Amino acid sequence: MVSSSFGQLFRLSTFGESHGRAVGVVLDGCPPRLPIDVDAIQHDLDRRRPGQSRLVTQRDEADRVEILSGVYDGVTTGTPIAMVVTNRDQKPGAYDHLRDVYRPSHADFTYRAKYGVRDHRGGGRASARETIGRVAAGAVARRLLREAAGIEVLGWVSSVADIDADLDPATVALADVEGDPTRCPDPEAAAAMTTAIEQARRDGDSLGGVVTVVARSLPAGLGEPVFDKLDADLAKGMLSLPAAKGFEVGSGFAGTRMTGLTHNDPFEPGPDGPRTVTNHSGGVQGGISNGADLVCRVAFKPTATIASAQKTVDVDGNAVELAARGRHDPCVLPRAVPLVEAMTLLVLADHWLRQRAIDVL
Amino acid sequence: MVSSSFGQLFRLSTFGESHGRAVGVVLDGCPPRLPIDVDAIQHDLDRRRPGQSRLVTQRDEADRVEILSGVYDGVTTGTPIAMVVTNRDQKPGAYDHLRDVYRPSHADFTYRAKYGVRDHRGGGRASARETIGRVAAGAVARRLLREAAGIEVLGWVSSVADIDADLDPATVALADVEGDPTRCPDPEAAAAMTTAIEQARRDGDSLGGVVTVVARSLPAGLGEPVFDKLDADLAKGMLSLPAAKGFEVGSGFAGTRMTGLTHNDPFEPGPDGPRTVTNHSGGVQGGISNGADLVCRVAFKPTATIASAQKTVDVDGNAVELAARGRHDPCVLPRAVPLVEAMTLLVLADHWLRQRAIDVL
Amino acid sequence: MVSSSFGQLFRLSTFGESHGRAVGVVLDGCPPRLPIDVDAIQHDLDRRRPGQSRLVTQRDEADRVEILSGVYDGVTTGTPIAMVVTNRDQKPGAYDHLRDVYRPSHADFTYRAKYGVRDHRGGGRASARETIGRVAAGAVARRLLREAAGIEVLGWVSSVADIDADLDPATVALADVEGDPTRCPDPEAAAAMTTAIEQARRDGDSLGGVVTVVARSLPAGLGEPVFDKLDADLAKGMLSLPAAKGFEVGSGFAGTRMTGLTHNDPFEPGPDGPRTVTNHSGGVQGGISNGADLVCRVAFKPTATIASAQKTVDVDGNAVELAARGRHDPCVLPRAVPLVEAMTLLVLADHWLRQRAIDVL
Amino acid sequence: MVSSSFGQLFRLSTFGESHGRAVGVVLDGCPPRLPIDVDAIQHDLDRRRPGQSRLVTQRDEADRVEILSGVYDGVTTGTPIAMVVTNRDQKPGAYDHLRDVYRPSHADFTYRAKYGVRDHRGGGRASARETIGRVAAGAVARRLLREAAGIEVLGWVSSVADIDADLDPATVALADVEGDPTRCPDPEAAAAMTTAIEQARRDGDSLGGVVTVVARSLPAGLGEPVFDKLDADLAKGMLSLPAAKGFEVGSGFAGTRMTGLTHNDPFEPGPDGPRTVTNHSGGVQGGISNGADLVCRVAFKPTATIASAQKTVDVDGNAVELAARGRHDPCVLPRAVPLVEAMTLLVLADHWLRQRAIDVL
Repeated sequence: MVSSSFGQLFRLSTFGESHGRAVGVVLDGCPPRLPIDVDAIQHDLDRRRPGQSRLVTQRDEADRVEILSGVYDGVTTGTPIAMVVTNRDQKPGAYDHLRDVYRPSHADFTYRAKYGVRDHRGGGRASARETIGRVAAGAVARRLLREAAGIEVLGWVSSVADIDADLDPATVALADVEGDPTRCPDPEAAAAMTTAIEQARRDGDSLGGVVTVVARSLPAGLGEPVFDKLDADLAKGMLSLPAAKGFEVGSGFAGTRMTGLTHNDPFEPGPDGPRTVTNHSGGVQGGISNGADLVCRVAFKPTATIASAQKTVDVDGNAVELAARGRHDPCVLPRAVPLVEAMTLLVLADHWLRQRAIDVL
Repeated sequence: MVSSSFGQLFRLSTFGESHGRAVGVVLDGCPPRLPIDVDAIQHDLDRRRPGQSRLVTQRDEADRVEILSGVYDGVTTGTPIAMVVTNRDQKPGAYDHLRDVYRPSHADFTYRAKYGVRDHRGGGRASARETIGRVAAGAVARRLLREAAGIEVLGWVSSVADIDADLDPATVALADVEGDPTRCPDPEAAAAMTTAIEQARRDGDSLGGVVTVVARSLPAGLGEPVFDKLDADLAKGMLSLPAAKGFEVGSGFAGTRMTGLTHNDPFEPGPDGPRTVTNHSGGVQGGISNGADLVCRVAFKPTATIASAQKTVDVDGNAVELAARGRHDPCVLPRAVPLVEAMTLLVLADHWLRQRAIDVL
Repeated sequence: MVSSSFGQLFRLSTFGESHGRAVGVVLDGCPPRLPIDVDAIQHDLDRRRPGQSRLVTQRDEADRVEILSGVYDGVTTGTPIAMVVTNRDQKPGAYDHLRDVYRPSHADFTYRAKYGVRDHRGGGRASARETIGRVAAGAVARRLLREAAGIEVLGWVSSVADIDADLDPATVALADVEGDPTRCPDPEAAAAMTTAIEQARRDGDSLGGVVTVVARSLPAGLGEPVFDKLDADLAKGMLSLPAAKGFEVGSGFAGTRMTGLTHNDPFEPGPDGPRTVTNHSGGVQGGISNGADLVCRVAFKPTATIASAQKTVDVDGNAVELAARGRHDPCVLPRAVPLVEAMTLLVLADHWLRQRAIDVL
Repeated sequence: MVSSSFGQLFRLSTFGESHGRAVGVVLDGCPPRLPIDVDAIQHDLDRRRPGQSRLVTQRDEADRVEILSGVYDGVTTGTPIAMVVTNRDQKPGAYDHLRDVYRPSHADFTYRAKYGVRDHRGGGRASARETIGRVAAGAVARRLLREAAGIEVLGWVSSVADIDADLDPATVALADVEGDPTRCPDPEAAAAMTTAIEQARRDGDSLGGVVTVVARSLPAGLGEPVFDKLDADLAKGMLSLPAAKGFEVGSGFAGTRMTGLTHNDPFEPGPDGPRTVTNHSGGVQGGISNGADLVCRVAFKPTATIASAQKTVDVDGNAVELAARGRHDPCVLPRAVPLVEAMTLLVLADHWLRQRAIDVL
């Protein structure tokens, strides 16, 4: 069953296993005549790349993207854009010990239950390397949204374990996010997060956290009733990310503890029409953007791969113990930021195009 | 742009406005030879119907479903099943005062921004009446999943405002849920919720809350990497419900505050293969069911329609005051339970069918 | 499996069996603010209706269309447009003799083979009554294409059995088509067709033929490489019509007997850019419209229902004889014209909208 | 707008331009555990490759396929299968003379009209090289259909210009097709075709023709009412091929000249249930296979690229003359056979999988 595609009009299809020949993406539906700068795509890929800092896994990969089609003379031609990253850091045999055992809270057992077969090397298709294609396509979406609509998307780490950043989504700046390896723009929280992550690594343990993403300069009117609501598509996109366990828009779960009188966002006259005084809606009402900042939060569980020994079962049904070897992230949050941005960009590009086919009379 | 359809193989398309001629659904892809009991469908519709108790709106609607096609001699024929509910409780003129004003935190403004036109009567397409079609289709999904796979889905209210029920998802029973108008099976919490909801009504205010849903006897292997993950599709389905602002699977946001060592679900040998000792995963790993109970939570904001006066803007851009007249729910949670169940059933039926087209060799 | 929907952005989903409660259509993706005139829809439905002349079946049906949703104050709202026609001419028991037998060259056996069950009354879902929804949606497409792009679609009967009309597609006029019950605008051929059809009826036999359709004032640029070519989508649409067995665009099969030198359409400078001197391409090159008239032909087999006795098999595998009773068309061609027009309109509306989401930078 | 994908459950997405870095395909939905033999895929690719004989273009390309993902230990894993062929025969500057001119009956003008930009080198995306991905995916479909259902698909050239082969579709054998460079298994016709094609080359002209394809051992029940009929999807697939102008199933256009009495296929009792005595239906009734051989015909126009001078227009609107240089096929028919087979295989694999998700109760 087809399931490696996302989006209706701006549609990406990813392919590739962690330790196969390559991972990649085909992006179909990108409008023609969009300038494409391969360095900008590479820049976003580098942000998700392992080995950026001591906080994340040291696996060494160039992850150089190659554009195979759909771009000519520096602009998109309207035809599918295929982008590929060759897998270079393959170590034959490095994963032999995982061939016959199911890692806890990984997809090893479920892939086997589903398909009756699996590529066990490095998580195969369930590897976070699959997200390379998403980030590459997201970089194209970023360019489209910026050029055509002036929309900007920015994400950051808002919590790690029980360390919460103190931030106003309306004022966070890219430089502050990228200025710290944690991608948390609250320096105090960032310092605490760094300490906690390093301690987790020493403990053979791992941490989770929350990424917040905001989209600014979003026009009102994006999002499609009733199933393809803007927040519904965002929710799907975010939950499709590895390790994601929750999604909120606007007030989210905390909003359930408010009352209607305080939660409702009053309208006031604005220079470009009605605007909300508060933003508990998170920029979405009835599934459609209202012109305020889109604000979402995504929960990521603690990394499943840990160095400590864990109880599990092998493919023959025997109880065994397993401890991870080699490289792994004690906390995926910093690297999750470009993933959350990519999904946001992809959803927005799709809905921006969809609105082009609606507002025609 | 097409957006009123949901599902790939078990696909429903809803239509209809709150105060148009009818609301309904076309369900395409239901397997042939499934017995259909219109009373069972009506039963689920009655659970979402207004006027069930003093806790919810007193709008009086028979909401009788009529099957127009796809069923012959009491069984499905494999062709599209069209189901319609005629809108009877139409009061011409009752919504005239909302023609030119945007209700706060409703979809009035965003529909106008998107389409340049709207049916203002009772929320039009954004009305909760749209969910009638979802519940009717969900009832068919319930029958399919029960007959073909023994899967059962059950939802309940787990919190209203700051009143949290104390429940173990593994043991909640349907009779306990339906035994109280709040649909909260914890009697103590249910009593407190009732008091709070009645107080909110008296205050011209409203409350939000959380619905928990569980699917039991789910086989391992349902859910499709990498975008159509089981939890990703559930997230989308839930966020497409009116007033939904958040979604969690398993440990959700709370899980981000645990560490990998405590969060990972160890496997142990079970009679039917590996099974998890704990269920922080919520029954889903790598987007695929692992055979444990599926457990999700959905956040619903406080009802936007309140009797108290609120500041807003009219279609000409003037600041105005608005207070709701007539019938409305001070808390949608009890009626949200069948909606959350319906979306769960629809997603599961779809993925169960998808797996049929995968496990073929 | 979902299969009763057609189109990507301008998408219709039909439902209903010949002798169930109703047949209908849900049209999703129609742009908002399009004026809708129910009489214009009814007019197109009347053109496909049985009983228009002595040449077609005398089954008496009002076939009055009712719009259930998606239209408010006389214009589309952007939400799904549901249109229903109630089945009135039901004669219980009239089809009992077909319950257990497979009519030759009908879909009786194949539906049973596929679904293991079937609604045998009047062909059930395979009945030509299913096309009512297509024609109703096609009438909306006609309005959209005319208002937004000035495109006009016209079809006619170009042959019945071996009687070929002598016509230039560039000059055929609607009045001439509708001026004769055969919908053949060549009077001499029309007279011969009339005689042949009446003779076939007397013989308990039936005739087939060809419908030609043209779309005029089509802009260049509609149609999507590489699978959703304009002619590819038209081919699918036409072959999805009951009794259709062939499709041609431009020179079609006859063009295979020409050589490149004579078949190629030279370009010449025109007032609005390049235009072709000849039109063997039928208005489509590389699957994309080139601004010339779109010209297609659709082959319809002789009606399968005939009054003469035929050999067949019953559901128990016994050889039996069968002769049709009651009403049936000795030649579907005149009624096929609005169907071919409808599919052309639906494909063009879809591709016109798709191009809106491409030409955005 | 997304349009480079085909199929619902067995879905391929092609990418790549004639003279870009590579052409390729991502095949999503192939069932897991299917043995994959890269040599078998290469074999089908070699059949469509230029330079096989003096009858076709002498462009020299290895066209070696590389599998990037989705196959592990020799079997499919259920994840997307990406296959790529690098473009080696690139001659920079060889197409400079076509940068500013529209070749008659090519897609040069229409791509420019649609996208406002085009990759003019060798036809870019409109090149027949795009079909490499289809043939590679078709080879996987061939394996699936053979292994899982015993279905065999075979195509051949049944006419070139006015030379018609005299063949019974029921008895044509693969060896006879592949035994002659024309892929026409009627030796007399093949000899005449060879002479005609060589003469056309000498004349700077080109020829068209018809490919017939048959699918044998097809079970009854494949094909989905009402839009995704088996023959409707085949029609779309065939018309999406370069140079295709017509499609017929069974009796096709010739059948319109028969009467119902002679055209209807009587049923007779067979060892496995009802079977038709004749096969004017071409194996499809009501859009669903009936167990008889599927028989289709596809019309291909004379190759648009010819060596003779032709009138056309340049991008500035000036009338110019153009004659093709270099390599090109005077007749695409022999190379069209594997393309027609591929589309048939892809449609059948898709519908075979779809039926798996229907026949579940």
